[in-house]
Amino acid sequence: MHRENQGKLEVHGKVALANSHDLSLAYSPGVAEPCMAIHDDKEKAYDYTMKGNFVAVVSDGTAVLGLGHIGPEAALPVMEGKSVLFKNFAGVDAFPICLNTTDVDKIVETVKLLEPTFGGVNLEDIAAPNCFIIEERLKKELNIPVFHDDQHGTAIVTLAGLINALKLVNKKMEEIKVVANGAGAAGIAIIKLLMSMGVKNVIMCDTKGIIYEGRPNGMNPVKEQIAKITNHEKIQGSLVDALKGADVFIGVSVAGAVTQDMVRSMNQDAIIFAMANPVPEIFPNEAKEAGARIVGTGRSDLPNQVNNVSAFPGIFRGALDVRAKEINEEMKIAAAYAIANLIEENELHDDYVIPDAFDPRVAPKVAAAVAKAAMDSGVARITVDPQEIEEKTKRLAVIK
Amino acid sequence: MHRENQGKLEVHGKVALANSHDLSLAYSPGVAEPCMAIHDDKEKAYDYTMKGNFVAVVSDGTAVLGLGHIGPEAALPVMEGKSVLFKNFAGVDAFPICLNTTDVDKIVETVKLLEPTFGGVNLEDIAAPNCFIIEERLKKELNIPVFHDDQHGTAIVTLAGLINALKLVNKKMEEIKVVANGAGAAGIAIIKLLMSMGVKNVIMCDTKGIIYEGRPNGMNPVKEQIAKITNHEKIQGSLVDALKGADVFIGVSVAGAVTQDMVRSMNQDAIIFAMANPVPEIFPNEAKEAGARIVGTGRSDLPNQVNNVSAFPGIFRGALDVRAKEINEEMKIAAAYAIANLIEENELHDDYVIPDAFDPRVAPKVAAAVAKAAMDSGVARITVDPQEIEEKTKRLAVIK
Repeated sequence: MHRENQGKLEVHGKVALANSHDLSLAYSPGVAEPCMAIHDDKEKAYDYTMKGNFVAVVSDGTAVLGLGHIGPEAALPVMEGKSVLFKNFAGVDAFPICLNTTDVDKIVETVKLLEPTFGGVNLEDIAAPNCFIIEERLKKELNIPVFHDDQHGTAIVTLAGLINALKLVNKKMEEIKVVANGAGAAGIAIIKLLMSMGVKNVIMCDTKGIIYEGRPNGMNPVKEQIAKITNHEKIQGSLVDALKGADVFIGVSVAGAVTQDMVRSMNQDAIIFAMANPVPEIFPNEAKEAGARIVGTGRSDLPNQVNNVSAFPGIFRGALDVRAKEINEEMKIAAAYAIANLIEENELHDDYVIPDAFDPRVAPKVAAAVAKAAMDSGVARITVDPQEIEEKTKRLAVIK
Repeated sequence: MHRENQGKLEVHGKVALANSHDLSLAYSPGVAEPCMAIHDDKEKAYDYTMKGNFVAVVSDGTAVLGLGHIGPEAALPVMEGKSVLFKNFAGVDAFPICLNTTDVDKIVETVKLLEPTFGGVNLEDIAAPNCFIIEERLKKELNIPVFHDDQHGTAIVTLAGLINALKLVNKKMEEIKVVANGAGAAGIAIIKLLMSMGVKNVIMCDTKGIIYEGRPNGMNPVKEQIAKITNHEKIQGSLVDALKGADVFIGVSVAGAVTQDMVRSMNQDAIIFAMANPVPEIFPNEAKEAGARIVGTGRSDLPNQVNNVSAFPGIFRGALDVRAKEINEEMKIAAAYAIANLIEENELHDDYVIPDAFDPRVAPKVAAAVAKAAMDSGVARITVDPQEIEEKTKRLAVIK
């Protein structure tokens, strides 16, 4: 399929351009008018050009899906696919930018130089810890929204699932003990988002076991920061030790990392998001046999799929439509609630805490909620009725 | 028109992506196969991705149409229009890259970092002399074709017109005296291309008058080089002095630069390409009144329009389809002959030396000729039947 079509993405003109008259309007001399309008006021680029609907999907090819550091050329099929998802789910035009460098300064510099063409930046498949530094610097230095989907997309959908799962087991964010395995981009972002939602008791593990302040090996600046805000009792040991008495397990690690005995050691009504791909940390049937109540994975053939396609298209749709300067915590949390609240209380059950990734209601609801949160939190540059954004997203989406 | 559509360009998916099964093929896990194939052999990017059909339209906004240095945001409407022309004339997917810098090193570095995503680079509306340096460096440092359209597109179509005009007046390249006014990107490129075709007697003028070796003012490294290879008699003076006894005038300068008296001083059967836009150096009726025989301009409402849309779409189509490493002189000359030869000898007349810009035969013929020249001159990485490329271009073009 990838070969037959010579890739998966193409451009199209949105205006007629088939004769000399068309040319004089779309190109010279007609194009001078929008050019000079933008020259007088850069903000007009959002009215007269593609900028306001275009997102750069930027990758250096260092952490591509489950494939690892395969380089920018080999990452291109993924970025093309991602761009098609943006378009089909929310009518966002996205374009792959695969960069021939892994140098943080060069990536930041390049994306800054590309800013005039794009209304937003989606960082993709960039390895930790560089992804954190690149995102932080770009957020500061650009006037358009920057979003590292591997971090926040996954975090937002996980949070949506957890919001609904906690309703079913009748526990509160403030009370639960959460154990996360995997301290890469997604793991760190999930923990930070959950803590911003009130979760207090968190233990994070990586390949060296529990992360604690002052651990002598396998640390980096991001893990040092995590060590400071989690694991208040400074527990040491392995994932086995961490999981004892936990209410929630968040896996963004490797196949089979969790055993049935480990699930048995968790608290009653255990919630498990085992998101290693394609083989989860533990399969739902095994986890449930060992006492878990609610299990989600990354797989489309199992219940409660955590798929960030539920988040990123609607998030950028909403952010672009109000010309948001950034994608802030309020917007992420609004997205999570929009996803969670799509499932009515009477529909909610253990195997349905996250809506289907292809549920056509998701992106429009997320777009509207994100736009509203952007306006409410003061990062929107224009005001638009969220209902209008929801309708527009429905209209533009290919997924119906 | 530019406003109603929020710009003129959008992306489209070329593959179905509307359900979970599609997703598993186009994205995870199916996408791993093309990724790993490219990881093993980068050349496979041409088979499995968009790369082989995508051209970056790169500008820094320093010399946009007749508007000058208006900046990268304001240049975007032009680059979008250009991208639509690429698509409509030859099925080439092109994408605007408007860069937020005018620094030569940064532009070169950025385009190099973008190489994995693109099969070719079209430099656009970058002011001289930076455009020469940028093109030269990128040609050396990239493995994909680089083409500055303002230089070579105009040069190729002018050459096509001159080839046909010389047939009508029965003069030879080796014998004619050519005077060019305007030493910017296009002027320099035209002179170089004509000299590579055998023209020996050339005088070039700029705003300071005739360019000669050792002229004390208004020189730059490119003009110094031009001074060395033209004006062998080291004539000094103004355009008035230069034009005496000239056979051909090439204007890429300003409205009204040529008077009827200046035309009267030219040789018999004078040929004039007065390409200042939108008002030419001299209008055809005035020039003819003063004795000129063949006159071309940049305007679509006058005969013999020099419009580089006759060149760039077919040139990139041909270059991409044989995976050419560069666009060399042989390919440019082949393009010029393909354009010129579209007009049969019996159709040729003073007001028809250049085919109509919207003649649908142009791009397919140019693509085939350029591909053949690339293969013959050893810069093609694969072999394709030129006839096949001509048919493909016809099929892909929107202009029918």
